[in-house]
Amino acid sequence: MDLNSDLGEGFGVWTLGDDEALLEIITSANVACGFHAGDPTTMRRVCARAADLGVRVGAQVSYNDLAGFGRRRIDVDPAVLTDELQYQIGALSAFGPVAYVKPHGALYNTAAVDPAHASAVVAAARSRDLPVLCQPGSALAGLAAEAGLRVVGEGFVDRGYLPDGRLVPRGSDGAVLTDVAVVVERAVRMARDGEVVAVDGTVLRLPFESLCVHGDTPGAVGMASAVRLALLAEGIQPTPFT
Amino acid sequence: MDLNSDLGEGFGVWTLGDDEALLEIITSANVACGFHAGDPTTMRRVCARAADLGVRVGAQVSYNDLAGFGRRRIDVDPAVLTDELQYQIGALSAFGPVAYVKPHGALYNTAAVDPAHASAVVAAARSRDLPVLCQPGSALAGLAAEAGLRVVGEGFVDRGYLPDGRLVPRGSDGAVLTDVAVVVERAVRMARDGEVVAVDGTVLRLPFESLCVHGDTPGAVGMASAVRLALLAEGIQPTPFT
Amino acid sequence: MDLNSDLGEGFGVWTLGDDEALLEIITSANVACGFHAGDPTTMRRVCARAADLGVRVGAQVSYNDLAGFGRRRIDVDPAVLTDELQYQIGALSAFGPVAYVKPHGALYNTAAVDPAHASAVVAAARSRDLPVLCQPGSALAGLAAEAGLRVVGEGFVDRGYLPDGRLVPRGSDGAVLTDVAVVVERAVRMARDGEVVAVDGTVLRLPFESLCVHGDTPGAVGMASAVRLALLAEGIQPTPFT
Amino acid sequence: MDLNSDLGEGFGVWTLGDDEALLEIITSANVACGFHAGDPTTMRRVCARAADLGVRVGAQVSYNDLAGFGRRRIDVDPAVLTDELQYQIGALSAFGPVAYVKPHGALYNTAAVDPAHASAVVAAARSRDLPVLCQPGSALAGLAAEAGLRVVGEGFVDRGYLPDGRLVPRGSDGAVLTDVAVVVERAVRMARDGEVVAVDGTVLRLPFESLCVHGDTPGAVGMASAVRLALLAEGIQPTPFT
Repeated sequence: MDLNSDLGEGFGVWTLGDDEALLEIITSANVACGFHAGDPTTMRRVCARAADLGVRVGAQVSYNDLAGFGRRRIDVDPAVLTDELQYQIGALSAFGPVAYVKPHGALYNTAAVDPAHASAVVAAARSRDLPVLCQPGSALAGLAAEAGLRVVGEGFVDRGYLPDGRLVPRGSDGAVLTDVAVVVERAVRMARDGEVVAVDGTVLRLPFESLCVHGDTPGAVGMASAVRLALLAEGIQPTPFT
Repeated sequence: MDLNSDLGEGFGVWTLGDDEALLEIITSANVACGFHAGDPTTMRRVCARAADLGVRVGAQVSYNDLAGFGRRRIDVDPAVLTDELQYQIGALSAFGPVAYVKPHGALYNTAAVDPAHASAVVAAARSRDLPVLCQPGSALAGLAAEAGLRVVGEGFVDRGYLPDGRLVPRGSDGAVLTDVAVVVERAVRMARDGEVVAVDGTVLRLPFESLCVHGDTPGAVGMASAVRLALLAEGIQPTPFT
Repeated sequence: MDLNSDLGEGFGVWTLGDDEALLEIITSANVACGFHAGDPTTMRRVCARAADLGVRVGAQVSYNDLAGFGRRRIDVDPAVLTDELQYQIGALSAFGPVAYVKPHGALYNTAAVDPAHASAVVAAARSRDLPVLCQPGSALAGLAAEAGLRVVGEGFVDRGYLPDGRLVPRGSDGAVLTDVAVVVERAVRMARDGEVVAVDGTVLRLPFESLCVHGDTPGAVGMASAVRLALLAEGIQPTPFT
Repeated sequence: MDLNSDLGEGFGVWTLGDDEALLEIITSANVACGFHAGDPTTMRRVCARAADLGVRVGAQVSYNDLAGFGRRRIDVDPAVLTDELQYQIGALSAFGPVAYVKPHGALYNTAAVDPAHASAVVAAARSRDLPVLCQPGSALAGLAAEAGLRVVGEGFVDRGYLPDGRLVPRGSDGAVLTDVAVVVERAVRMARDGEVVAVDGTVLRLPFESLCVHGDTPGAVGMASAVRLALLAEGIQPTPFT
C-alpha cells in the first residue's frame, strides 16, 4: 500500500503544510507545479528531499488559478487544459523524475465526473505514459484505463463515502472524519481488505492502491503518522506504487 | 550559419510577431516559456511546427515578469533565478526536445555583465547540458565556457556594435539599423567572414555561429527573409548549430 | 443613444484593438481593469484621452483570468467575486471618474443567467451606486433594478437575436453579422425605434439605451464609424447615457 | 505617537501574520494591495475591522511581484511605477478611506535612496494628496516634502540604526533586535524623546511620528503588545497620525 500526500503547496514567502514531516511518513508526494501553488524553489527542495528518502514524486496538476488555490472549476477549453497540464508536468520534471499524475482540487472533482476535462488529464498523462492517481470508479479512472494508462485507485482515510463509492460532499454530515482512532481503523481496513464502510453502512470493495493523508495542520501530521504506524503494526509496509 | 529568432511571444488572446512566417526562414526558434510571454498552447503549436520544419527549439528563458515582458531587471536571488530558469526549460520540454538556452530581454543584458545572474543561466543550462546562445565576450559566454557548456556566439544583423564588441545601447545613435541593404550586407559579412564593422569603423572579428533576426513587424519579416536569401546566394545554407 | 465599446484591452507589451480610433467614435468606454486585460499605464492613458473627448468611462469588470481573457466561467464564490469586482472598480477610479459598470466576457454571459454571479455584480455596483450596462431582460438587469440601480439596456449591432431577446450563441448560424449595410440599418432601427428583428423574423422591442460597437479589427473600426455616421444622418447624436 | 504595522499580507489560501491581534494594538494599518500580497477579500476584511476599531488604513504599495513578496527591486520605468502605485491606492479605496501611503519592501528601500522611484511614490501619493509614511532623511522624505505632501517619520523599534540615521542592513550585526526589554525601552525613548541610539552609541534625534511593529510571528505580536503597554505606562496614548 502506498501513502500519498499533497506537498509543495506554498508560494513564495507563503507556506502551507509541513512538507518535511510528511516526507518522513509518505511514499508518494503529489507536488504542486505552480498553477494552484508551488514555486520553482519549493519544487526543487521537495523533489530533492523526496529523492533522498525514496519518496516518489507525482505532478499535482491544476487549473491555472493561484488566487483560488485551484479550488474553483474553470470552464477552460479541454485542448488548452491539456497543454496547461503538460506544461506543469514538464516543469516539475526539471527537478527530478515524475512518476505519476494526480489532479488537484476542482480539477480532481471535475475530472471525476466530466469526460472532457478527464480526457485532458488523460492526454497529458499519456504524453509521458504516466500512471494516474484518482478515485476508483471515476470518469477519470475509466478514461485513463481505456487509454491504456495505469490507474492507481486512491482512498481517503479521513473522508466519508457514499454507497456508490463517491465521497460525501464537503459540508454534508459525515464528510470529514476527525477521530484518529476511527481514521486509523478505516485506513487499516482499506489497506488490508480493500474495503471501506459507507455512511449508510454498506461495505464497499474498492481497488485502493494508495491512501491519501494530509499535513496541513499539526493534527493532520499526527493522524498521518498514526496511519503509517498502524499499517506497519499490521505488517503492511508503505511502499510506492511505482 | 544558424539563423535564430524569438518566437511564441504572445500570451493568451494576445499575439506578437509572425511565428508562421519566421519558422519558414530561421533554423533555431527561441521559444518563450511563460515567464515573460508564451502560454502552453502557443508553446505546443510553435514546437510542433518547428519540428515539422526541422527548426531547432531553444528555451528563451526570462525573469518572472509577464507585466513587463521580461524587459526589467529584477534583483532576484541567483539560486531562485536558477530554479525559475530550470522550471521554464522543463516546461518547454513538455512540447518537444529543447536544444539550447537563450536568455531574454533584461536577463540577456544582465547576464552579459553580471556574473551572479550569468551563473544562474549557466547552472540551469548545465542541468540538461544545453548549449547557451549568447553574445560573444559576455560574462555569460565566459562562465558557460568555464562550466564546459557549448557557447554559441550570436550576432545581431540589425544592431550597431561598439569597438569592444558590445552592442550600441538602444536609444543611442546607430543602435538599430533599418536599411535592408545595409543589414543584408552585414549579415553576409558576419556569416562569411566572422566580421562586423563597429560604429567607429573598427573591424571586429567575433565567433558568430548564429545570427538573430526578428519578426515582430511586417518589415522585420521581410528583412529576415532578405538575410536568408542573401546567405543562400552566397552559398551559405542556414543550418541549425546543433 | 449611447455608443459603447471595450477599450484598454491590451496588457503590457501587447495591444488589442484601436483605442484611439474608437475614442473618436463612441460616447462610453468600457475600460478593462487588469483582471482579464488592462494594465495601470493603459488604464491611465485611455481614461485621460476619454476625459479629453468627453467620453464616459465605465469599469469593464471580469473574472480573475488574464490567461483566458476573462472568457472562461470561473466557479468563484459570489462574495469573493464581489470583492474582486469592487477592487477593479476602485483601481480604475484612480485614473478618473467611473460612470458605470459592465461585466466582461464570461462574467457578462454568466451574470445574464446566474443570479449568484449577477448579484455579485450588483453588490459591487451598489458600493458606488453605479449604473449597470447589460442585456435587457437578463438576470443581471432584473437584480440591478431590484437593488435600485440604474439599468442601461445594451444592444449589439452586429449580433443576431433569438426571439426571446437573448443573443444567438457564437458558433451558431446568424450569431455574428458582418455586412456593414445590414449592421448600420439594424443600429439605426435599434436607436430610433427600440426594435431589432430576431433570426426568426420576430420584431423585438427592447429598451436599448446604448449600442455596443467593436474596434478589434480594422473592419470593426470602419463598422463602428459607419454606425455613428448613420445615426447622425438620422438626426441621432450619440450621447453618453450618464 | 502612532503605531503602524503591515497587514493583509496573505494571498488567497495563504496567510501571513496575525492581523486580528495586530489590529487591537496598532493605530495605523499598512494594508497590502495585491501587488506583493493581499487579495480583495483580505483587503475588505482588514479594512472593515480597522474601521470598527478606529485604526487608520494606509496603502502599502509595492512593485508588481507576488512571487517575490515585493522584496526584489525591479527596474521598472518610473512613469509605469507611478501608474502601478495609483492603481493599488485606487483598489484599496474600494474598501474604505485610504489615509496614507507607505511603500513596501524593496520599494521602501529603493525609494529611500533612488530619486526616480521615490518620485513615483510621491506622484502617486499626490494624486490623492496623501501623507507618506517613510524613513526620516530618506530621498522619499525629501521629495515628498518638496512636493508639499505631509511626511510622517517612521521609527523601527526592533532595528539597529547607523550613525547617519539609516538602518543597519539586514544580515549585519545589530540589524535586528530581539530582546523585548531592549526594544520596549527604545520604543519609549523614540516616542517620548524622539531619540534612538545608533550602533556606535551616537544618539540620533529623528522626527518620529509613527513606530513600526510586526505581527508575523507569535513573538512579534507579544513584542508589539509590550511596546503599546509601555507607551501607555509612560502616559503616551497611541493615536493615528491623521
